[in-house]
Amino acid sequence: MDRLSLNDDDKKVRDWLANEAKAIGCAVTVDQMGNMFIVREGKHSHSNMAPVMMGSHLDTQPTGGRYDGILGVMAGLEVLRTLHEANYQTQGPVGLVNWTNEEGARFPLVTVASSVWAGLTPLETAWQCTEVTPPADGATGPQTMKQELQRIGYLGTVAASYEAMPIAAHFELHIEQGPILEREDLKIGIVTGSQACCWYDVEVRGRDSHAGTTPLGARKDALLAAAKMIAAANGIARSENGLITTGRLRALPGSVNTIAHTVQFSLDVRHPCDAVVDRMVASCRSTFEAIAKDDAELGVDVQWTTLATNAAVHFDKDCIRAIEGAVQAENDQLDQPRPWMHMTSGATHDSCNVSRRCPTAMIFTPTKDGLSHTPVEFCKPEDCVLGAQVLLGAVVRYDAARAAIV
Amino acid sequence: MDRLSLNDDDKKVRDWLANEAKAIGCAVTVDQMGNMFIVREGKHSHSNMAPVMMGSHLDTQPTGGRYDGILGVMAGLEVLRTLHEANYQTQGPVGLVNWTNEEGARFPLVTVASSVWAGLTPLETAWQCTEVTPPADGATGPQTMKQELQRIGYLGTVAASYEAMPIAAHFELHIEQGPILEREDLKIGIVTGSQACCWYDVEVRGRDSHAGTTPLGARKDALLAAAKMIAAANGIARSENGLITTGRLRALPGSVNTIAHTVQFSLDVRHPCDAVVDRMVASCRSTFEAIAKDDAELGVDVQWTTLATNAAVHFDKDCIRAIEGAVQAENDQLDQPRPWMHMTSGATHDSCNVSRRCPTAMIFTPTKDGLSHTPVEFCKPEDCVLGAQVLLGAVVRYDAARAAIV
Repeated sequence: MDRLSLNDDDKKVRDWLANEAKAIGCAVTVDQMGNMFIVREGKHSHSNMAPVMMGSHLDTQPTGGRYDGILGVMAGLEVLRTLHEANYQTQGPVGLVNWTNEEGARFPLVTVASSVWAGLTPLETAWQCTEVTPPADGATGPQTMKQELQRIGYLGTVAASYEAMPIAAHFELHIEQGPILEREDLKIGIVTGSQACCWYDVEVRGRDSHAGTTPLGARKDALLAAAKMIAAANGIARSENGLITTGRLRALPGSVNTIAHTVQFSLDVRHPCDAVVDRMVASCRSTFEAIAKDDAELGVDVQWTTLATNAAVHFDKDCIRAIEGAVQAENDQLDQPRPWMHMTSGATHDSCNVSRRCPTAMIFTPTKDGLSHTPVEFCKPEDCVLGAQVLLGAVVRYDAARAAIV
Repeated sequence: MDRLSLNDDDKKVRDWLANEAKAIGCAVTVDQMGNMFIVREGKHSHSNMAPVMMGSHLDTQPTGGRYDGILGVMAGLEVLRTLHEANYQTQGPVGLVNWTNEEGARFPLVTVASSVWAGLTPLETAWQCTEVTPPADGATGPQTMKQELQRIGYLGTVAASYEAMPIAAHFELHIEQGPILEREDLKIGIVTGSQACCWYDVEVRGRDSHAGTTPLGARKDALLAAAKMIAAANGIARSENGLITTGRLRALPGSVNTIAHTVQFSLDVRHPCDAVVDRMVASCRSTFEAIAKDDAELGVDVQWTTLATNAAVHFDKDCIRAIEGAVQAENDQLDQPRPWMHMTSGATHDSCNVSRRCPTAMIFTPTKDGLSHTPVEFCKPEDCVLGAQVLLGAVVRYDAARAAIV
């Protein structure tokens, strides 16, 4: 898949989705961020109940797979079709959201449209966000999100806001994008929250000098110091059972026979508990400082810049219970129950933003070799089916429970 | 200094040097590589004796200093002026070479013109070498060495060859470009040879995956593996009292939250003994292989590419003795003798090529903080003077000794 947000292929799949939704009697509303809200009326729709929504995204990475995001939207549509074909009347309205630009691959703001909906990112900031992937054939130059929303006909008039488009609860089915379910031979992950995640840029400043004439003891080798820091950070992550990753590194001036004077590298630190992330970061800071002061490197300097801090997200207990009930009900019908586990999402999803404004939880399905954001991304058809069944069960259960309260 | 080889400033200084040389009665010959041979006749010049030459270079790095190369040429000119003013007649001819493009900063072949002279690099390869620094104002695009030699009027007709332009012996005065003399409070380094130096590109191939969803035990983190290798190589260099440097590193795809699938880094390995370089390289190979096979990284692949292998250079015993004699004679005249040491050159110089075809040795002067290839590069005036005195003494001694044999 190469369906970058708001390109011609995205328009095609959006048009198709809207038609499929209308064909089963659903209303389709597009907001100012191009988020598509598909709603099927329930018994008590007259009482202004907000819909219980299923939601995910249809955009992909430039060399993406066929499941990341897509599974959640397609399963949501299948749930709505199933309700329609069974002529099943829910208590309140239920529906499906297709969130715009979840990937942040074309417009470099990840989950930006659900963030605007949740009031976390200003509309203008999102609208002015300019594409970073090469412009399409015939384009005069890099386009903004607003220009592209307008071009493909998905710049809606309804405010992109949880107040204008309230949601009663949000369920997202998604592939795990990691190897845990597959490795444990489990079929369903009931996602209780999302890891805390902090991003930093670390800059190490030494001194450039000649690789042939400078004895080891007289060097300020920024790249050697950075290498030791990256290895040490990995040790810290291991000891805390967390994740620390360096994916980006730049060494300057970048010459074979010149010792690097400056190295910049990224640090991605994650753990389900905020406190553990804080502890790992503190431990990295003191360890890096110790490496920087090591005789061998003769005192390089270390500067940290915080790029992003995202606290851990804890999903809603009622939503989690609705999913547990659905899994239980599925298993009750089977000779061989499908094993499942509670788990924490390693990645960020639209559900993390949405959970700030309404009860939310997620369902994970196994991912072959844990690989995502690649054409070989794969989830077995029977695992997709089970995920969709659980999604249906969770929505119906949550809807029934809230109606009981109303 | 920003006197890139064969630019307008290089033409200016060449013209100046030629005029200064002619003003003291020297002949100036330019070869096909723009090397300038300045020769002062001696007593026995009729007997076809080759000249004893002093040589270095006048080109600099883009942000270079005022000593690297320049000291050797200026001191050589000062020696010729001193002989001229003293009306001193040497036995055979003596002179000065200004070697073209020693730095390899503009045309990326280090010491290329002395290499052509020594028959180590074909003339056409050097001529076709294209500049890598931004072309000058008004240039239509990147220029070759031949184009630029022609443009500034230094494309000579004499073959660039040790046969067409033989040299009896070659003495090069140069700043140390390292911190050893300064640290030991010594004034002169008598250079007995040049380190063996091998360059490699190491490519580590892992697997890109999501930094948030991939547990540490399920990663093939190419950058973590590379960091461990760089730290390990440093340990190997320490244990062998050699030098190993990584100055260049590229991590792909280079994203904060994606584990790097590929890392390429350079390895510069040096030691005065060829055997120790071989041992360090073998040790790096086996250590890197062990790191690559470590459980933690789940088997990344490592590929080595050899970029360059330069065996250790051992300078000529007679040339070294001539320098020792000159230092001794200087010290005999002083109340406080200037301490000196034998040392090995960490960097490559034109003398390394020249030594393949004629007796050669070098003289080093202290370098403030060991810094070179930077505008703050500095050698005290009195240290420059001492270096020039020793150069004069060495040339006169060598010349006298060979005349005694002839």
